[in-house]
Amino acid sequence: MSNIIKIGLLGCGTVGTGVIKVLEENLDEITPRVGAQLTISRILVRDMKKKRQLPGNAVITDNIDDILNDPEIKIVIELLGGIHPAREYMLKALQAGKNVVTANKDVVAQFGKDMFAAAEKSNVDFMFEASVGGGIPIITPLKQCLTANKLTEVIGIVNGTTNYMLTKMSEENANYDEVLKAAQEKGYAEADPTADVEGLDAARKTAILASIAFNSRVGLDKVYTEGITKITPEDIAYAKELGYTIKLLSVSRDGEKGIDVRVHPALLPQSHPLAAVRNEFNAIFVKGNAVGETMFYGRGAGQLPTASAVLADVIDVARDIVKGHFGKIRCTCYEHKTFCPIEKTTSSYYVRLLVDDQPGVLGAIAMAFGQTGVSLNAVIQKRKVKNNAEIVAITHVVQEAKIRKAEQVLNKLPAVDKICNVIRVEGPTCQEG
Amino acid sequence: MSNIIKIGLLGCGTVGTGVIKVLEENLDEITPRVGAQLTISRILVRDMKKKRQLPGNAVITDNIDDILNDPEIKIVIELLGGIHPAREYMLKALQAGKNVVTANKDVVAQFGKDMFAAAEKSNVDFMFEASVGGGIPIITPLKQCLTANKLTEVIGIVNGTTNYMLTKMSEENANYDEVLKAAQEKGYAEADPTADVEGLDAARKTAILASIAFNSRVGLDKVYTEGITKITPEDIAYAKELGYTIKLLSVSRDGEKGIDVRVHPALLPQSHPLAAVRNEFNAIFVKGNAVGETMFYGRGAGQLPTASAVLADVIDVARDIVKGHFGKIRCTCYEHKTFCPIEKTTSSYYVRLLVDDQPGVLGAIAMAFGQTGVSLNAVIQKRKVKNNAEIVAITHVVQEAKIRKAEQVLNKLPAVDKICNVIRVEGPTCQEG
Repeated sequence: MSNIIKIGLLGCGTVGTGVIKVLEENLDEITPRVGAQLTISRILVRDMKKKRQLPGNAVITDNIDDILNDPEIKIVIELLGGIHPAREYMLKALQAGKNVVTANKDVVAQFGKDMFAAAEKSNVDFMFEASVGGGIPIITPLKQCLTANKLTEVIGIVNGTTNYMLTKMSEENANYDEVLKAAQEKGYAEADPTADVEGLDAARKTAILASIAFNSRVGLDKVYTEGITKITPEDIAYAKELGYTIKLLSVSRDGEKGIDVRVHPALLPQSHPLAAVRNEFNAIFVKGNAVGETMFYGRGAGQLPTASAVLADVIDVARDIVKGHFGKIRCTCYEHKTFCPIEKTTSSYYVRLLVDDQPGVLGAIAMAFGQTGVSLNAVIQKRKVKNNAEIVAITHVVQEAKIRKAEQVLNKLPAVDKICNVIRVEGPTCQEG
Repeated sequence: MSNIIKIGLLGCGTVGTGVIKVLEENLDEITPRVGAQLTISRILVRDMKKKRQLPGNAVITDNIDDILNDPEIKIVIELLGGIHPAREYMLKALQAGKNVVTANKDVVAQFGKDMFAAAEKSNVDFMFEASVGGGIPIITPLKQCLTANKLTEVIGIVNGTTNYMLTKMSEENANYDEVLKAAQEKGYAEADPTADVEGLDAARKTAILASIAFNSRVGLDKVYTEGITKITPEDIAYAKELGYTIKLLSVSRDGEKGIDVRVHPALLPQSHPLAAVRNEFNAIFVKGNAVGETMFYGRGAGQLPTASAVLADVIDVARDIVKGHFGKIRCTCYEHKTFCPIEKTTSSYYVRLLVDDQPGVLGAIAMAFGQTGVSLNAVIQKRKVKNNAEIVAITHVVQEAKIRKAEQVLNKLPAVDKICNVIRVEGPTCQEG
């Protein structure tokens, strides 16, 4: 047990501090599990003057070369976030023969291929469990535990900020602006919440999940993305009445029409296991042709949960160092599957409209839907909004192209004042139609 | 990709046939993931004359030596079940330098130590993901993904048969005998259901889970075990009224008083993620000091889910064979923690009594509880059963020894006709008291 494995840490923010904390607190458990002692020996920081609590013998530096050129450092943990300079630093570390562990979904989603190639060339490991689902084990389950399956579906709640906001909207009848403010006060949402509320953070994670699940590189540009900014308390109330919960879903499906990858709000039946995932929790539901339905649930963000995932990878690599072997599981994108464009995907849809409150209007609307090949499963008309009647329709499963055509036709009807919202309804048959 | 890795399969029952099926159907996915082609070359069966569909070039035999002495077989999958001769065969296979993958909870729970020692000596792998939770990845998550944590709690629903029965009892107001019959008709329960309904199957899985979670060998004899045979529709109805669901729980805790490991029915708050796990599904809830709360959910049994887990291990081993290295994670029981005897564990309790329907009886009962140091959190008295009144009490968290003392005192009270049931209530504070 006298072996020491030295680590270079890039970034000492929330997660970096968490990694230091967890490693310190659990060292007595981790050392025998690894068969060697893990030590963070150098830490890259932006501001050398800032006061921080550093682990034992760690030295801080603001020069990446101090870490890249230290031959004793075998593992580099990258927690800078964002593309630059994280991408360049990781690439250099891999080229310098260092194993790299990262939580950086941006780099993995967009430049994972380069990282894997560099890791393979240097015969080192490149690991990124923390990039999706925070503390929830999901990358290893997909690459390892479920690898005997043909995976057909990965559906998840992968953004804690928006799930917290939608939970509050649903349980406290609050509106979007109120819950955004609450999320910002709790530290769940950034001052500029765009990446979360517009679905971009979830889209990056979706690109990573789909790439692994379907053995095919899924670029960020292939992920159709809608955020939650248009969701209103009215939509949430109607959804509830109809037996649904609105969630921001990450959806990846591999079907006959190709890979269908998207992030958008969706009505989820209250009986679906994901519907019960509340607040900042995440969960990922995976379907395989042997295992059937599985789900992985836990904290999708936060200092310690993310540190748990980062250190799991570090321990995995350290066990490789102890044994002297690397790269058991390399990049698994050995296929080039085609994609199903969003227009060709199918779903059931929730449509909320304001229309003239006159006899015959409901018929005209039903006709407009029918004319474009959209059949209705349920219609509610109960509330008056000023002079208008509010109508909510749930369609049968239909191709996206048809619902878009229906929107155009409805918009031209004189009796239709406004199409307030169109939201997909997640069901079991969404790639059937 | 021209490499072929040959496998010997012991047992060709439900799960064995499932392994053959999944390997055949998903071979095009599995081969590139492994970097070699997996082939089942020999199959050990009891009855050579039975008609079966065999994979490509497989040869059946009723002599284990045909497999042990075949130098081309690198991996042995053991699916015989039970202790004998599975234990002896696995040991011989390991000694012969073959990697072993098993779904055998009996052998792992009782003789895991010998298996690990033999695997280490021969420098091969010994894997058993399918022994707990069927298709749900749980052994790998515990040994690998959550290994940076000090794990404090593993609570699960790990027996699909009893969960199916309790779900039916709860949702259809059926009684124990009816649901047992339904479970037998569906093939969920054996003709002799003892191992399931008395909690023994769950106890074996609990011994395995606790051993891994707490780095300490937990023998089957250390698992306090109660089954579900005493649960009545009345208990389920009262539980529901009080906001609980009754589940057969596997509970492993590591606290100040030692390791507390048990299997018993428990009232679980309806808001607990495990309360929503219905029918034959399993789920395991794991708490760690970094990751917080996580949960793993899926099918805990069945042909294809179990085959999914068996083949995940096979692929893991095959990747090791391709890379030429083994034994990355060996036995992790490097500690010798003490155990907390059941009398010293603490819990809140549900107690259902039949008492004389007379003034003052409720007071006498409350006094008997108080006299033994048990304080009550809630009491319901609403129903008459013949000449008796039925009382249900929920206690505050108290030591098991005290509730047993209270039972003795209550039994001696002339007004108490019968203590119908005492069931633990699972709460957040069960090792506090």
